[in-house]
Formats: sequence, C-alpha cells, structure tokens
Amino acid sequence: MTGLPEPRTRAQRLADTLARLQEFTADAWVATASARGGEPYLVPLTLAWLRDRIVLASDGPTRTMTNLAATGTARLSLGTTRDVVMIDAELEESFPVTDAPAWVADGYAGATDWDPRETGNTYVYLVLRPTRIQAWREVNEIPDRTLMRNGTWLS
Amino acid sequence: MTGLPEPRTRAQRLADTLARLQEFTADAWVATASARGGEPYLVPLTLAWLRDRIVLASDGPTRTMTNLAATGTARLSLGTTRDVVMIDAELEESFPVTDAPAWVADGYAGATDWDPRETGNTYVYLVLRPTRIQAWREVNEIPDRTLMRNGTWLS
Repeated sequence: MTGLPEPRTRAQRLADTLARLQEFTADAWVATASARGGEPYLVPLTLAWLRDRIVLASDGPTRTMTNLAATGTARLSLGTTRDVVMIDAELEESFPVTDAPAWVADGYAGATDWDPRETGNTYVYLVLRPTRIQAWREVNEIPDRTLMRNGTWLS
Repeated sequence: MTGLPEPRTRAQRLADTLARLQEFTADAWVATASARGGEPYLVPLTLAWLRDRIVLASDGPTRTMTNLAATGTARLSLGTTRDVVMIDAELEESFPVTDAPAWVADGYAGATDWDPRETGNTYVYLVLRPTRIQAWREVNEIPDRTLMRNGTWLS
C-alpha cells in the first residue's frame, strides 16, 4: 500500500469519468447474463455517451442483445483494471439501425470511429440508462468510489 | 476496415496469449452472474496462470465467489478491447488462504505483485479451468479466434 498516489477528489473522479465516457472510440467491456442459469457473457463494444445514456451498437441477434432483452441489466467497465470506471445500467430502449432517431444514429456516428448504418441492416442500437457509476484506481480509492447511485449523480 | 495490420497466425496468437497470461501482474476482467435473474457482475482481479489453470484471489465472501459457487462459470477478458483474450472457464477448486496447497499459494505470490496470505485470513483462492480461449485484435482477426475449445488447445 506504499507508494500509491493520493486518492483523487470526488470532483476529479467525476471529471475523469466524464472525459473517459466522451472519448472518441471509448470501448467498454459489457457483461450480461442469461436469465436462467447465470451464464455470464462479456464482449468489448464501442460506446457513445449521449444525453447521459450509454449507446451501444450490436449486430443482432447477439447474446448481449438476447441477455439484455431477457434481464434488462448490464454491467460495463471502461479503462484499465487499475483505472476503473464501472457502470451498472438498465436497458432503456433499443432501435434497429434502419429506424433509429437522429440523436442516436447521428450521435453514435459522431462520437465513435464508425457508423453502423454503413455496415449492415442487422445492427441494433442499445440505449442503456446508468444506475450506478463507480470510479477507482488503486485500493486507496475504494472509499468514495461511487459517483452515481440510483441514477443520480452524487454531489 | 482499411489500414488494419495483417491478421496474426494461430501460432502467433497462441504465443501472445500465453505471454499475456504469464505476465507479472496480469489483470483480468472477471464476469460472473447470479444463478437466478441473470444479474451480471464484473470486477478486475489479478490472475496467476499456474498448471494451465487461472488462479484468482478474492476477499471472501464476494459476489464473484457467491456467483461462482452457484453457477460454476466465469468469463474473463485480458488485454484491451482492441487486443482481446477472452476465456470461458469453470470453477475447479477453491482454497481458503490459510489452507491452500503450495503450488497455489506460493505460485500465486510468485506470479503476481502481492501475496494474499499477508493481507488477511479471509481471502480465498479460486482455481478456474479454462474451457474456451479466444484471441483477436480487430475484425479481421475474428476468423480463427478460437485457440482452445472444450478445454483442449487447437492445433
């Protein structure tokens, strides 16, 4: 436990977290699970942070989509294992790539390095509402790691 | 899809994957799920690759341990979202830190930057047997990404 940098303030963690979410080509590890039997699934997906929502694009039907449709729940991480942003989220809406509102489709294309509309008609946008967001680097940042709880940013 | 490096050969992916597993302080994202309701859980944990097994240490009782005890199944990723090693694994054995065989306890301490035995008596080693290992970087490496299937390395 020696030699660790001082833990960041909450304000700094919030700023770092928002910066990470808004990075061009932010990628997340997206964990979901089957509704029965608890079979975990995990994939990397490119994320857009739009209107305080996480927007993913998945080439359907995928296990991520099937799991989300059945359970409504995902847990996502961004960053590295020693500079973690961890997000619990609920599926709010999904849109076929051929019939998505502009804020989703144009927003996703603008926030990432690719546009699912150019790739095929089978993609689906998944709009997730974060319910809890935590951010920590090393063990000395475990306290105060919760930045959002029940969908509300903590002050 | 332009500008991607040539996909690696299977032999190169295998070598890269083993090197990653054997890295000092290799960290994995470990996804598990509740047996009922499919609630996903995801945490970063330091991994040791010993005797072709993944050994983790968790400060019990954790949700990862509870989920693994109930479902027996985890999915782990190493590396980055654009240089992925993805592992499906089954819980084979678990040992309290106070009563673990030397190959696990000494092996874990030697392969990582910490020794759970020095941290507290509540840690548990989790020994996972990989059943499937996949490795890919970009989309052009999706074909041939499976290096192990049903617990057997593919040749």
